[in-house]
Amino acid sequence: MIERGTAPKGRGQLNQIGDDCAVLSLGSKEHLVVTKDCMVEGIHFDLGYTRPYAIGVKLAISNLSDIGAAGAWARWALLAMGFKGENSKSFYKEFLTGLISTLNHYGVPIVGGDTVSSPNGLFFCLTLMGTTSNGKWLSREGARPGDVICCSGPTGDSMAGLLLLKGRRHRPCPFWFKRYLIKRHLYPNYPHGLGSALLDARVASSAIDASDGLSKDLRHISERSGVACIIRRSALPISRPAHHVALMHGIRDHDLALKGGEDFVLIWTTPKAKLQEARRVASSILGHLPYEIGYVEEGQGLYLEDSSGQRHMVKESGYVHGR
Amino acid sequence: MIERGTAPKGRGQLNQIGDDCAVLSLGSKEHLVVTKDCMVEGIHFDLGYTRPYAIGVKLAISNLSDIGAAGAWARWALLAMGFKGENSKSFYKEFLTGLISTLNHYGVPIVGGDTVSSPNGLFFCLTLMGTTSNGKWLSREGARPGDVICCSGPTGDSMAGLLLLKGRRHRPCPFWFKRYLIKRHLYPNYPHGLGSALLDARVASSAIDASDGLSKDLRHISERSGVACIIRRSALPISRPAHHVALMHGIRDHDLALKGGEDFVLIWTTPKAKLQEARRVASSILGHLPYEIGYVEEGQGLYLEDSSGQRHMVKESGYVHGR
Repeated sequence: MIERGTAPKGRGQLNQIGDDCAVLSLGSKEHLVVTKDCMVEGIHFDLGYTRPYAIGVKLAISNLSDIGAAGAWARWALLAMGFKGENSKSFYKEFLTGLISTLNHYGVPIVGGDTVSSPNGLFFCLTLMGTTSNGKWLSREGARPGDVICCSGPTGDSMAGLLLLKGRRHRPCPFWFKRYLIKRHLYPNYPHGLGSALLDARVASSAIDASDGLSKDLRHISERSGVACIIRRSALPISRPAHHVALMHGIRDHDLALKGGEDFVLIWTTPKAKLQEARRVASSILGHLPYEIGYVEEGQGLYLEDSSGQRHMVKESGYVHGR
Repeated sequence: MIERGTAPKGRGQLNQIGDDCAVLSLGSKEHLVVTKDCMVEGIHFDLGYTRPYAIGVKLAISNLSDIGAAGAWARWALLAMGFKGENSKSFYKEFLTGLISTLNHYGVPIVGGDTVSSPNGLFFCLTLMGTTSNGKWLSREGARPGDVICCSGPTGDSMAGLLLLKGRRHRPCPFWFKRYLIKRHLYPNYPHGLGSALLDARVASSAIDASDGLSKDLRHISERSGVACIIRRSALPISRPAHHVALMHGIRDHDLALKGGEDFVLIWTTPKAKLQEARRVASSILGHLPYEIGYVEEGQGLYLEDSSGQRHMVKESGYVHGR
């Protein structure tokens, strides 16, 4: 347990922090939505260029994004920390500041967890619990032929930021491109409230957050819904800075957008008849129209359609986290 | 997420395993009780003498014991695994068999989690979620002067088993002593249903499971309830094998019983007026009377009372896990 004496209880928490368990109260018609994400030193972060504050932020966002994509509201968190003695107290303090301030920003208290010694390497695991009302939630299932594939923001930015941080190629890159992309990698955000708004408006047939890369995550929708997903290459939301970095590194920008992970944008499918309403709902949360990046067809697999209408199968390839 | 295709859903789980989140349904008058425990290679287990199966069993029991001590019933689990490539597939299979068979035995399905690469060392984190009805639960608070301190089973066995496994002193020890103690260390058990039965009968004023050692855990009750706890040395439940091993190693047996961790017995306090009923309830679960190891007084701190009635303050000292 994380011992924090008489730390304030989270809303809905019935006992004091410091017990082995947290006792939590749900509303009578609420369902519990839970997720768990871990970050491991050397895999998900590299202390060479990542501040502990940023690790905390990303751990919070990766879990918040999962709960958000289910159309739920995050409520409580449990934190497990495997700490190395060689890191200073200020290291953990900075990590916790990043984590807790991000969670607090979205109204989520840490209600418990476990702190263990891990001499061979740091790790952090967060369990996030949320609630959804009236037995509704969004999942990877439910996309139907004819649906439009939407996306809340650009993809590939985080990966482009990572390429800059690793900085093995010192080609010219405008300062504000660098700043934008590195910030997108180190201090990601997620479209808070979007999943829930789409769920309430009943305009999304399936949803997932893009944490492992657009292609990998969209493939989950394709497989679990039993449909083919076609992405229009020209509709891929690629930011100018990401396009620039792709050029710099001799990568095709759509590869960056398809395979780069940790963008934490929401990908969802909307039946054509509900597209107008989905645009309205998403705009009210995002402040801009969602990107309509493709469509769903009968069949299976994931395809990239170029401007001439020709389709190329998108091969399976995972995003390698962090470094 | 742990991808397990069309693995069967747990009772109360509304979506398929394989989504980023698990969606869980609670009864209308139920509260959620959550806990999280981690095990790290080199800290909580030593692969020199621990089979992966045993790691799985202990991870399950340490979490089940926490939920049980809150008077709740365990319902769902989330597993995070940080795995090293150098371990074989059969290693993880055996670990999962130990974990899942133990959880299944108590009706708990794994509903999600995260699997990450952890090149520098293995770790496993389990989040266990349980429910308790009618807004009741047991905690460390609530012990009052005059209460009797009870314990569900002997303490020190697990530590004695560990001493034998480390086997630095090859003094004679009867075979069945060895077998009993090593089993108690590697394949612990916990008093399933006891916390809940005591809660339902309203006979426990506070409770905690002895995972960090009787003295450390009882100190939590003392501090959180604002009372002094007095343990009668002659009443300490020390098994014959543990007593033998203490002698072998030149340790006082009560030190073993007070400081050895991972026994996963339940420690609770019962008001004197309800002692008869508590004995009846506990016996019906345990198959034997609970051990009445001491009593609660006004004041603070933890004391050991010897046969002449003299008290000795029990100093703070943690149990060092595993090895």
